[in-house]
Amino acid sequence: MDLATRVWNHTWKIDPIVRSLIDTDFYKLLMCQSVFRNRPDVNVTFQLINRSHNVRLAELIDEGELREQLDHVRSLSLTRGESTWMRGNTFYGKRQMFSPEFMEWFEALRLPPYHLEKKDGQFELTFEGAWPEVMLWEIPALAIIMELRSRAVLKDMGKFELQILYARAMTRVWEKGQRLRRIEGLRLADFGTRRRHGYLWQDWCVQAMIEALGDKFVGTSNCLIAKKRDLEAIGTNAHELPMVYAALAESDEELLQAPYTVLEEWQEEHEGNLRVILPDTYGTKTFLDRAPDWLAAWTGIRIDSGDPVENTEHAIRWWQAHGQDPREKLIVFSDGLDVPEIEALHARFAGRVRLTYGWGTLLTNDFSGLVEGDALAPFSLVCKAVEADGRPTVKLSDNPEKAMGPKDQVERYKRLFGVGEQVGRAVRV
Amino acid sequence: MDLATRVWNHTWKIDPIVRSLIDTDFYKLLMCQSVFRNRPDVNVTFQLINRSHNVRLAELIDEGELREQLDHVRSLSLTRGESTWMRGNTFYGKRQMFSPEFMEWFEALRLPPYHLEKKDGQFELTFEGAWPEVMLWEIPALAIIMELRSRAVLKDMGKFELQILYARAMTRVWEKGQRLRRIEGLRLADFGTRRRHGYLWQDWCVQAMIEALGDKFVGTSNCLIAKKRDLEAIGTNAHELPMVYAALAESDEELLQAPYTVLEEWQEEHEGNLRVILPDTYGTKTFLDRAPDWLAAWTGIRIDSGDPVENTEHAIRWWQAHGQDPREKLIVFSDGLDVPEIEALHARFAGRVRLTYGWGTLLTNDFSGLVEGDALAPFSLVCKAVEADGRPTVKLSDNPEKAMGPKDQVERYKRLFGVGEQVGRAVRV
Repeated sequence: MDLATRVWNHTWKIDPIVRSLIDTDFYKLLMCQSVFRNRPDVNVTFQLINRSHNVRLAELIDEGELREQLDHVRSLSLTRGESTWMRGNTFYGKRQMFSPEFMEWFEALRLPPYHLEKKDGQFELTFEGAWPEVMLWEIPALAIIMELRSRAVLKDMGKFELQILYARAMTRVWEKGQRLRRIEGLRLADFGTRRRHGYLWQDWCVQAMIEALGDKFVGTSNCLIAKKRDLEAIGTNAHELPMVYAALAESDEELLQAPYTVLEEWQEEHEGNLRVILPDTYGTKTFLDRAPDWLAAWTGIRIDSGDPVENTEHAIRWWQAHGQDPREKLIVFSDGLDVPEIEALHARFAGRVRLTYGWGTLLTNDFSGLVEGDALAPFSLVCKAVEADGRPTVKLSDNPEKAMGPKDQVERYKRLFGVGEQVGRAVRV
Repeated sequence: MDLATRVWNHTWKIDPIVRSLIDTDFYKLLMCQSVFRNRPDVNVTFQLINRSHNVRLAELIDEGELREQLDHVRSLSLTRGESTWMRGNTFYGKRQMFSPEFMEWFEALRLPPYHLEKKDGQFELTFEGAWPEVMLWEIPALAIIMELRSRAVLKDMGKFELQILYARAMTRVWEKGQRLRRIEGLRLADFGTRRRHGYLWQDWCVQAMIEALGDKFVGTSNCLIAKKRDLEAIGTNAHELPMVYAALAESDEELLQAPYTVLEEWQEEHEGNLRVILPDTYGTKTFLDRAPDWLAAWTGIRIDSGDPVENTEHAIRWWQAHGQDPREKLIVFSDGLDVPEIEALHARFAGRVRLTYGWGTLLTNDFSGLVEGDALAPFSLVCKAVEADGRPTVKLSDNPEKAMGPKDQVERYKRLFGVGEQVGRAVRV
């Protein structure tokens, strides 16, 4: 028996879910640096949004436990080893991705306060303050709620039931890997931090993919796991940038320009595979139709909502119309993927365009059908910027089920961006 | 990291498979005491017999490794804790099951030498010497060969492949347990020591059955696991007693009487649930037909070959013919059981007779279909007394596939015991 380890474990008042500030997605750190440089003084509010109303989180999860976990995150600061990794590592082939000014700020950072209330069986969890600080709450907040939900379901199970549960879940992940390894030319990354079953489970899934996929597994969005397992940290940018930029616009014209302004600034900072467009915030089609020419020279497009086949075909046509060879371009799929979707997309697009898959919830949290009442089935939880300097943010996306913002603002954005009828798609995860 | 444990593990020249003299079946110890008391000077030869010729053991298993494992068993002696358990424990409700004379002898015992040769892709492994000593080789010899075979198959597998292999095997065992727990009035014991996948695996399977079956799991034949897990040690007697007694018979008459002589002596030593007849050595039907009246007063009958339904119906009729109430009698099924057989037998006989199941290979070694080429499929390995004081032994059983002995002697026994046509049944395990 390893007595020291046992005693060490016993001395924890809680079993912390997030134990490191870099237990987060790489794109959060990239975006944070960008915001720190370009918009450090914007005041934002991030809010937890459970799109699966039937999962009554506040009835499953003890408020006190949630507070303890959130408080623990507020006690974290960047460790020396983490700082060394961020300063010294090569990301996307580039040294010193993070500037000394940003690193100094990040080393001194503690996450700002949170606001938590219960309402109608759900938690109202919000974070308000300076954008570069508040934005870092998104991933740990989601990971904490997801793992507390897992723990709540598992806590009444016996030792052997748990062993079999994990035996089955491991077998499932492994069999997915065995199917995926047969896909020629596959390039796949773990994007599953935010909705993972738990940290240790995500780490296991990543190791299983390394073993099953070899070079076809190109990395993980999770910085802590990338550091620990010597993997590439993967990610570029997300909806919060155009959403906040758009909310801050002083005129309709500036609003229409906002998604491109974001990318203009991004282009000053990043090159190569980091130049990936996320075009769906206010509709992929109109975004590409109005895009300035220089955007077509970017490396790739990430498809995060809507019909991935339609959107990819549209992107290919757009590149061709701008005299670009799609075979040199990259499509990053990241919306609700599982093995059948990956197989189908690959069968359709391999050879026509370069492909990468950001595999999330159904890699790191596929426990559906494994416990009674399917109480571990995946559900759709997000944590989004809802306000910037007192103005509401809006997201339309290519799926109206994923839209967010006040109704009148949503209508205004739809009108301005010329988004017509959209087809709703069920949001699984 | 538990440094001490790792270093301790590294200091072993080998990873011993059998680490205790009581890592054996309980009935071996009971029979050993009986032989020690009644026939201590008989010289016997035990021999390994692989009934599955397609499993070429000597090509799978390194002879040097086999010798190391066998040598390790010869270095073992009863520990103080083991001796205390045997002397102090209650077995079948009885204190002091093992006499002080036997315990003194057992405490001083080291297992006698073995003889090992390779021949035609198989091992010729024999043990020769005083019966009470040599008989104790049977179980460790089988467990060693079985586990070396498992290790030979597993040694080229990666860490994750192994993890998934065990995940699947555990899930299979657990699901068997979940099916069995639904059987009302089930009483089931682990009889899987001799053909287990490995010691740790057997121990896990036993724990899984405790968890899944609760009181329906009545114990294990393995003394070390019974001691460790505080379970009942289960078992009574086996074919070697009538086989050796018969081989020693000086006349046809004495030979015909031998199976009953064994039980007469057993009756002097044991009562209650230990009075279980194993009637199939020379044919169940003729054994019961010729049996003396006093045998019908015994508690039960163990069904270890042939058609279990037919043999049980015959046993019930036999008890009825002797004025016994079968509902007070016990049938112990122990031949090639798995869940469907247990379910079917229970459905047929529950309420008509008391039932217990000794579940062996398909509890502790069901890895079929889990590795490439089905290289871990169960196979049929035994280690039997083949000679006693220079005379060959014979077993007929109710299944000609399980018969053994020189051809002329088999014919002689069949003629003497009046065994007619027998129906062959494939021997899976």
